Amino acid sequence: MSGSIPFTPIVRGLPATIPFVGPEALERQRGGAFSVRVGANESAFGVSPRAAEAMRRAIAQTAWYGDPEAFDLRNAIAEVHGVDRDEICVAGGIDELLGLTVRMLIEPGDPVVTSLGGYPTFNYQVSGYGGQLHTVPYVDDHNDLGGLAQKVRETGAKLVYLANPDNPMGTWHERDAIGDFVSSLPSGTTLILDEAYIEFAPTTVAYPMDCANVQVIWMRTFSKAHGMAGARVGYAVANREHIVGFNKIRNHFAVNRMAQEGAIASLGDTGFIEEVVANVVAGREEYYQLASSLGLSSIPSATNFVCIDVGDGARARALLAALGERGVFIRMPGVAPLDRCVRVTVGTAAERREFANVLPEALRAL
Amino acid sequence: MSGSIPFTPIVRGLPATIPFVGPEALERQRGGAFSVRVGANESAFGVSPRAAEAMRRAIAQTAWYGDPEAFDLRNAIAEVHGVDRDEICVAGGIDELLGLTVRMLIEPGDPVVTSLGGYPTFNYQVSGYGGQLHTVPYVDDHNDLGGLAQKVRETGAKLVYLANPDNPMGTWHERDAIGDFVSSLPSGTTLILDEAYIEFAPTTVAYPMDCANVQVIWMRTFSKAHGMAGARVGYAVANREHIVGFNKIRNHFAVNRMAQEGAIASLGDTGFIEEVVANVVAGREEYYQLASSLGLSSIPSATNFVCIDVGDGARARALLAALGERGVFIRMPGVAPLDRCVRVTVGTAAERREFANVLPEALRAL
Repeated sequence: MSGSIPFTPIVRGLPATIPFVGPEALERQRGGAFSVRVGANESAFGVSPRAAEAMRRAIAQTAWYGDPEAFDLRNAIAEVHGVDRDEICVAGGIDELLGLTVRMLIEPGDPVVTSLGGYPTFNYQVSGYGGQLHTVPYVDDHNDLGGLAQKVRETGAKLVYLANPDNPMGTWHERDAIGDFVSSLPSGTTLILDEAYIEFAPTTVAYPMDCANVQVIWMRTFSKAHGMAGARVGYAVANREHIVGFNKIRNHFAVNRMAQEGAIASLGDTGFIEEVVANVVAGREEYYQLASSLGLSSIPSATNFVCIDVGDGARARALLAALGERGVFIRMPGVAPLDRCVRVTVGTAAERREFANVLPEALRAL
Repeated sequence: MSGSIPFTPIVRGLPATIPFVGPEALERQRGGAFSVRVGANESAFGVSPRAAEAMRRAIAQTAWYGDPEAFDLRNAIAEVHGVDRDEICVAGGIDELLGLTVRMLIEPGDPVVTSLGGYPTFNYQVSGYGGQLHTVPYVDDHNDLGGLAQKVRETGAKLVYLANPDNPMGTWHERDAIGDFVSSLPSGTTLILDEAYIEFAPTTVAYPMDCANVQVIWMRTFSKAHGMAGARVGYAVANREHIVGFNKIRNHFAVNRMAQEGAIASLGDTGFIEEVVANVVAGREEYYQLASSLGLSSIPSATNFVCIDVGDGARARALLAALGERGVFIRMPGVAPLDRCVRVTVGTAAERREFANVLPEALRAL
């Protein structure tokens, strides 16, 4: 049957293998559940009890579509950020917003810039709409802001992606450096500033939202600090003309009704988020010390995960496998030289103890 | 700021007004909640208690992404339909699947055929990807299968959409007629067969799934009989090459974790679905009789809603407004001659009584 479906040339040309093997798929491959799931940067500290209660209550109304305008949730977000409701687009996670943004701005063949080894879902969306990716290597495990700006100018890129703090490395730039980077962009270039991990970063990292600037689209999520990855809620903050654009193409009923209620409740539970962040900060310190105690270096992180440097890609891949055999699920960056590291999400105290027990054994087995 | 965003020509050319004003938005406009919400074809009979319990349990794991492969849910669906797991794509509702299908098969300018006044979200997706819509009027409130096939041949359409049973009219064709229609399509044309309402139809309506046929994509949803519109789960059944195509472009983590668990549980609660269908069948009969008692004709329906003929579009629009003022939310078809009808979802017994009380009063007020 292959070849008999009249796919568009773009879709026909896309690879059938995609970089999204979920933990459940890995568990099916290995024939059993992981005992420690610290690979997908999910929150080990769960969801706010208030958000859980709001979702439980909302189940009674599962039969009703969620509000396609996400009116109440956008009001709550607007208040948190001091922006207008019409400067916010809510969708089913940042992944969906990345796709919408590419679709809105990129035509087949248009150049797009990102970091080499950066968030693969952005690349997936760019390729999926026929955009042409240009990549800039990390410098010292940081996104190379100067290099990205230069590549934008060289290629005439209409779109550039930056995760700050970064995934997969955990590194970050201060807001002033981001400001300089934004100022250096040509007027026709749009920056996607993915701040998925911003709650875990020092307060000097978030780049202040200024929706008068038509060149920046901020992206935030409830999947990380809010512990709601399974609920699927993210949002973009941008100039209202961008939001009009999103509204022209988005799937208006995409956001789960319970998720909207949970997100509103979670925004109101700032004490819970502070606790989560404190736990993550403590957990990062434990990971730094664990690495150090084993003679390994680790990379200071402003996220809920830590990269541990094990020397080279072959060794990191072997360690990933050795940990997997022992029931510990982690991930690692995909390209050199970043792939000399493994990436470990901050788990609960118990999960961190278990990881600390298993890691030396797995290293010895290499 | 308008005009300063470098949108693609397709997105720039799309209308900013979209046909998705949700009930909540209407409630905000009128300054109060509706007392009877029977306009969005949501299930008045809620979600299976087993599904609700499964979702409640899953809230404890909200911090984890849902399985991007929806492995367990696809297994459950495969068993229900006697198809292979690899012939199923799960997504956040049929709306999302319509967008993916258009993206997969239609290039800008490609002709696409649908019924004039059919499901507007399909048109929205076609326009959103630059496809060129060709429409065929209903005949006697039914999709005109012969006319659709002829229009496909005339235009060389790559894609044709058919809802069976139909929304917004509630009418249906028997599976044999669908089979003749499929046989009459040119080999390069794909049919989207949207069976969102199939559970409410006679058993002779569902067109048997045959995934060897690369020209048909069946679509089903948990939003109607399963009472899970707020959860966002739908699926496509098609040839495995189509599923490979979906997997190349879909948002892999789009489906809410709780929704996946709820959908699996709901598939297992066939007794509940039978009860829902029995309630809907009884409610349709009540609506037919109510219309008749007021000297109005209604259109026999194989869905969870009934169209009541009030004479002409102006009168129907006025009735919609008069009902809205009285706290009753319904909708109506958008184009003539279908717009001589109002469309009322089967409510609970109490909602039907309230509707029966309010309708004569609203008619008198015209």
